[in-house]
Amino acid sequence: MTTDPDPRPPRRAPAGAAVLREEVTEAIRAAVFEELATVGFARMSIEGIARRAGVGKTAVYRRWKSKLSLVVDLLSAFAVQGLPAPSTGSLYGDVRALLEVASHALRHPVASQIIPDLMVESARSPEIADAIKATLVDSQRGMASLIVRDAVARGELPPGTDAYRLLDVAVGPLYWRLVVVREKLPKGYLDVLARGAVAALRV
Amino acid sequence: MTTDPDPRPPRRAPAGAAVLREEVTEAIRAAVFEELATVGFARMSIEGIARRAGVGKTAVYRRWKSKLSLVVDLLSAFAVQGLPAPSTGSLYGDVRALLEVASHALRHPVASQIIPDLMVESARSPEIADAIKATLVDSQRGMASLIVRDAVARGELPPGTDAYRLLDVAVGPLYWRLVVVREKLPKGYLDVLARGAVAALRV
Repeated sequence: MTTDPDPRPPRRAPAGAAVLREEVTEAIRAAVFEELATVGFARMSIEGIARRAGVGKTAVYRRWKSKLSLVVDLLSAFAVQGLPAPSTGSLYGDVRALLEVASHALRHPVASQIIPDLMVESARSPEIADAIKATLVDSQRGMASLIVRDAVARGELPPGTDAYRLLDVAVGPLYWRLVVVREKLPKGYLDVLARGAVAALRV
Repeated sequence: MTTDPDPRPPRRAPAGAAVLREEVTEAIRAAVFEELATVGFARMSIEGIARRAGVGKTAVYRRWKSKLSLVVDLLSAFAVQGLPAPSTGSLYGDVRALLEVASHALRHPVASQIIPDLMVESARSPEIADAIKATLVDSQRGMASLIVRDAVARGELPPGTDAYRLLDVAVGPLYWRLVVVREKLPKGYLDVLARGAVAALRV
């Protein structure tokens, strides 16, 4: 049973501030992840998370004020995986790199189980819909904007190309096959999808 | 599944066969739909469905043997909406028609709420994954195969074009924008997506 704040003597906390031990934070994050995958957002409780993490409820509340903020944190950490904008020097190369990152992310249980669960909750709660959008969609859109900006600068796409469309035509087909249909990709399929997305963007 | 003999008087039900009234069947179907949207598959019960439909539990069990078979029935009815294969005389026309049908289907609560809910359950239950695939995916794939077959016959696509890829590049982007990102489509977007899907299929 881990308790907060850090009981080790040498480190001194600033007056009034609780020192939040990173291992405890990580244990709670892992527990949120498992609870979301197992029982889903609707039935997940702070109590269940604390129990699974082997900490007290206060250790959770000291870090996050609600279930929703825990989920936002988890999604943000997940979204960051896809963040670095590739700069391979060609639109095809950048889209192929984006698909590589996305295909790993979409094979992760967060994509196949937790995101659909939160999509269900989104229909009931605008806060969750906003949280998904802010964490997952906005970060991807930032990256897509950079890829499109570079392609326009190189003359590969006409000025004014809609960057959001890049995600629709590149990530959409991958999400459909991997998450909705739940099938493995045929060999070489990311290459085919990348070429297709480039062709689709140019029409 | 419903072998309801016509209940109008002149016709007599065969001895021993229960007469299943179509209004009751429809009331139960509507109740399943509402229960799925409100409480989700995991928490839905035959008892709750019967209560919502204003019938006894036996009325439900007389028609469907389990929660899963109720859901398969609901998805089948939904999938049929997208079934008629368009034959407009061009690949672009057929893809545009497919997107028109799909965009209506994906705006329906079944798509935004019930399917994501069942996707979550799919990760826990192979039967549900199979049911989604058999009802939603297979019917769409049948239609896609016809569109691709006609396009190949007209010389618009090379022989051996993968029909499943048509769904990935046409329906995938639409699903991403409408269901995952939850945004309205820009004006004229279905035309853009149809042109993009045709270009993507030709690479």
